[in-house]
Amino acid sequence: MTTSATDFHVFDTTLRDGAQREGVSYSVADKLAVARLLDEIGVGFIEGGWPGALPKDTEFFSRARTELKLQHAQLVAFGSTRKAGVRVEDDPQVRALLDAGTPVVCLVAKSDVRHVREALRTTLEENLAMVADTVAFFVGHGRRVFLDCEHFFDGYATDSDYGVAVLQAAFGAGAEVGVLCDTNGGMLPSGVSRVVTDVRARVSGRLGIHCQDDTGCAVANSLAAVEAGVTHVQGTANGYGERAGNADTFALIGNLVTKMGLPVVPAECLPELQRVSHAIAELANIAPDDHQPFVGASAFAHKAGLHASAIKVSPQLYNHLDPAVVGNDMRILVTEMAGRASVELKGRELGVDLTGQSDAIGRVVDRVKVLEADGWSFEAADASFELLLRGQLPDAPAPLFELESYKTSVEHWGNGVVVSEATVKVHVDGERLISTAEGNGPVNALDNALRQALVNRYPQLADVALADYKVRILGWRGGTSATTRVLIDTTDGVGEWTTVGVHANIVEASWHALVDALTYAVLRRPAAG
Amino acid sequence: MTTSATDFHVFDTTLRDGAQREGVSYSVADKLAVARLLDEIGVGFIEGGWPGALPKDTEFFSRARTELKLQHAQLVAFGSTRKAGVRVEDDPQVRALLDAGTPVVCLVAKSDVRHVREALRTTLEENLAMVADTVAFFVGHGRRVFLDCEHFFDGYATDSDYGVAVLQAAFGAGAEVGVLCDTNGGMLPSGVSRVVTDVRARVSGRLGIHCQDDTGCAVANSLAAVEAGVTHVQGTANGYGERAGNADTFALIGNLVTKMGLPVVPAECLPELQRVSHAIAELANIAPDDHQPFVGASAFAHKAGLHASAIKVSPQLYNHLDPAVVGNDMRILVTEMAGRASVELKGRELGVDLTGQSDAIGRVVDRVKVLEADGWSFEAADASFELLLRGQLPDAPAPLFELESYKTSVEHWGNGVVVSEATVKVHVDGERLISTAEGNGPVNALDNALRQALVNRYPQLADVALADYKVRILGWRGGTSATTRVLIDTTDGVGEWTTVGVHANIVEASWHALVDALTYAVLRRPAAG
Repeated sequence: MTTSATDFHVFDTTLRDGAQREGVSYSVADKLAVARLLDEIGVGFIEGGWPGALPKDTEFFSRARTELKLQHAQLVAFGSTRKAGVRVEDDPQVRALLDAGTPVVCLVAKSDVRHVREALRTTLEENLAMVADTVAFFVGHGRRVFLDCEHFFDGYATDSDYGVAVLQAAFGAGAEVGVLCDTNGGMLPSGVSRVVTDVRARVSGRLGIHCQDDTGCAVANSLAAVEAGVTHVQGTANGYGERAGNADTFALIGNLVTKMGLPVVPAECLPELQRVSHAIAELANIAPDDHQPFVGASAFAHKAGLHASAIKVSPQLYNHLDPAVVGNDMRILVTEMAGRASVELKGRELGVDLTGQSDAIGRVVDRVKVLEADGWSFEAADASFELLLRGQLPDAPAPLFELESYKTSVEHWGNGVVVSEATVKVHVDGERLISTAEGNGPVNALDNALRQALVNRYPQLADVALADYKVRILGWRGGTSATTRVLIDTTDGVGEWTTVGVHANIVEASWHALVDALTYAVLRRPAAG
Repeated sequence: MTTSATDFHVFDTTLRDGAQREGVSYSVADKLAVARLLDEIGVGFIEGGWPGALPKDTEFFSRARTELKLQHAQLVAFGSTRKAGVRVEDDPQVRALLDAGTPVVCLVAKSDVRHVREALRTTLEENLAMVADTVAFFVGHGRRVFLDCEHFFDGYATDSDYGVAVLQAAFGAGAEVGVLCDTNGGMLPSGVSRVVTDVRARVSGRLGIHCQDDTGCAVANSLAAVEAGVTHVQGTANGYGERAGNADTFALIGNLVTKMGLPVVPAECLPELQRVSHAIAELANIAPDDHQPFVGASAFAHKAGLHASAIKVSPQLYNHLDPAVVGNDMRILVTEMAGRASVELKGRELGVDLTGQSDAIGRVVDRVKVLEADGWSFEAADASFELLLRGQLPDAPAPLFELESYKTSVEHWGNGVVVSEATVKVHVDGERLISTAEGNGPVNALDNALRQALVNRYPQLADVALADYKVRILGWRGGTSATTRVLIDTTDGVGEWTTVGVHANIVEASWHALVDALTYAVLRRPAAG
């Protein structure tokens, strides 16, 4: 099935325009991995970078020729039209783009008269010649050519005839797509729709759309352009890009397929969206956005409570889409309003068999109510909830250790040095262990000391690291009756889980969350124990 | 100027629907602070919560009556239509909503026949009576009444006549606004536009729009509804909300004012958008999204490179908007605080005379840049900023004391008792003081010990109490190179102020914020010293 590559173009530029995001820096190996992931969601085109301009991108295209086997996508190299006053075949940037050896090239051209004059500092006529010459050059070398018309919408407001002339120059020279770019991202959907409709009446040739998210409308602007007749849409994974970012490829695909009924990617690829979104976030070293449409961890999460039983009976009344369609799932957040129905739903989600466990479910509901009244919150702490749930079942996991006592301290010395230290005394399988360690804070010191005491018995803890630590003070009244809630995110390099602890003392609250975190690590990988 | 409250409604529901976001849990003091901030951006309505259903919200409305002075906004309490088969005056939830004493109530009603039957389990007729009775009840008690029509768009696709009937029942009973809610968030702008146009042809009365972001189109959907004729738009700060969140109030305002030319907030409020966005993020304890449209730290940031000089010459060619319009800045590393003009502005706001202090201003700018690069943030910590500012002036206040050393510890004993203790050694007016105290955590113990040492010299510290304590971990990488930022809110019973501290060690970071908090307390009331 090749719908995506023929009838409709989904064009991903995570590796080129998306790499403009502040703080993002892919290695060549990262870029190859991202390209493979994008291919798995069935996009038609993957723009890999700007060969010649960026040495890393030149290397990427060189390695891609042997290392990258794409099933659905064609690889695209990006470059600029020839320099003003230079013959196209003498322009080294054009040569590097040809040498990248991709089946498709995407050329960027100026289409706003002010940018031609003020940034490019050439004439309007020469810019048109640059477009025509460069397109013709690559078509002559057997390439498919797409033309990104930079600042098209702003330019169209100033001088629409010139935007049309650029497109005509490109199509006349053999370009396959003229991409209308909202480079500064200031458009709204109704404006995009008007311009696309107008351009379609004046130009024949396939049109594309490239939107930035500066008004928060990049996805909607792209869809408005599709409704107005474009059949080529550019996006980036998770919307990564300069400033407010680009149109999110996952939201584009999700909407085009499930809301607009356009089969723009092969049907079997759709359930890969969530996995690929998170994997690319990992490669980009950006924390996934839990609230991202379609693919975020919370995108289909419901605060359980009053409506839990209704959601259980008729989930379609509370979801805009069956989450499984995009590889996501419906998470039920356990809150103080939790009833038996939400615990059952949550148990199913966590893969805990609760068949015939009516009494245990009742005990869990009671326990959650008591704990949440004290300030515990399980809605963001699935791992602690799972431990609580399993703790009420017949095969409840045994605790890793018994605590005798701990002590942790912070000292600020006269010379300005700050030191933290902790000692834990625990019993593991009947053996009394005393362990002391330093840390960059009292909790880190406790973590180090406890891990040191347990690692011989539970070697899998060696791979475990705290990934995040959040603190919230609840019901503070003059500093005396306050309760502290601590959330700890933990990773073993494969997965990540969240635990919670609550106590008047921040260190004791952290200790609870820490012990849950390590217990859950062992529960996840018992074989290594 | 009251454009926002009369011609067009900007209705913010950060404190009600926005609080459905996973992990968000405001204290009552937080809610009051968020309401004050929202008022500063000139929204017309602030929905504060659901009195009766949530005890915290009941307390919020009670305290709001005396503690909340709003300049632009009217306070709104949210509630449900009466229960089926119950007289409206006998419904305790309706009574609690009335008791909240707000000028405006927003009622939620079912408008989808499937939800009436399957979730509410009542008849279509009774649901209409519930709407009419409840609206009439509140109108009879002198309230302005808005009606949120839950699941309106999904319901309209199933049975459009019923949606119209619900609106007619509400308007017939005196409701001022009928709000069309895309509760499941599955709409696209063109669909919203079609439905709103259709509804307007069938119903007379002011229509509103409430969008969730499940397709990534919440802002665009809201704007499409405005283009189709609604004059009431609901959003939440930073788009916080359940699942993928709500329409972002800041993007709504930014687009309505700067792209659609609708003066929906007073002109002088627009430059407050960025500051308020970040301050609310701090209160919600959520890291600000650098890539948020209009207000994100990167929203107008450009990766330096090919176009740097062109951007410098003609910034308007590369920005969709002058960033200053929304209080943002084009530069990457410089925050809103770090320019000379902002320091002068801030100084004026804090009542610090900076006339002829050009050198001092320069030193403050430099110092803020250095500190913010290390993770300090003064956006939510005015008191620390004022101390930093005054510290550079000729009449800089003297420190309260000199620190020799401190030590604080937490012990969890064998009997399960947890104790915290701290000792500080300080020099006050040449005298060496050693003070030891207990506390309910290491920071509270330090606070008690330090206060005990200082109170004879500064008796006004006896009235001072910590009101809140927030912790954020910055740039965590495997738990070793992390930096901790602590914000402390302090009150002396008259006013409240916020201070900040940053350090790898959470206790040392807290110490910095604590010392600033006490120093500021003395600065505020020097007469008592």
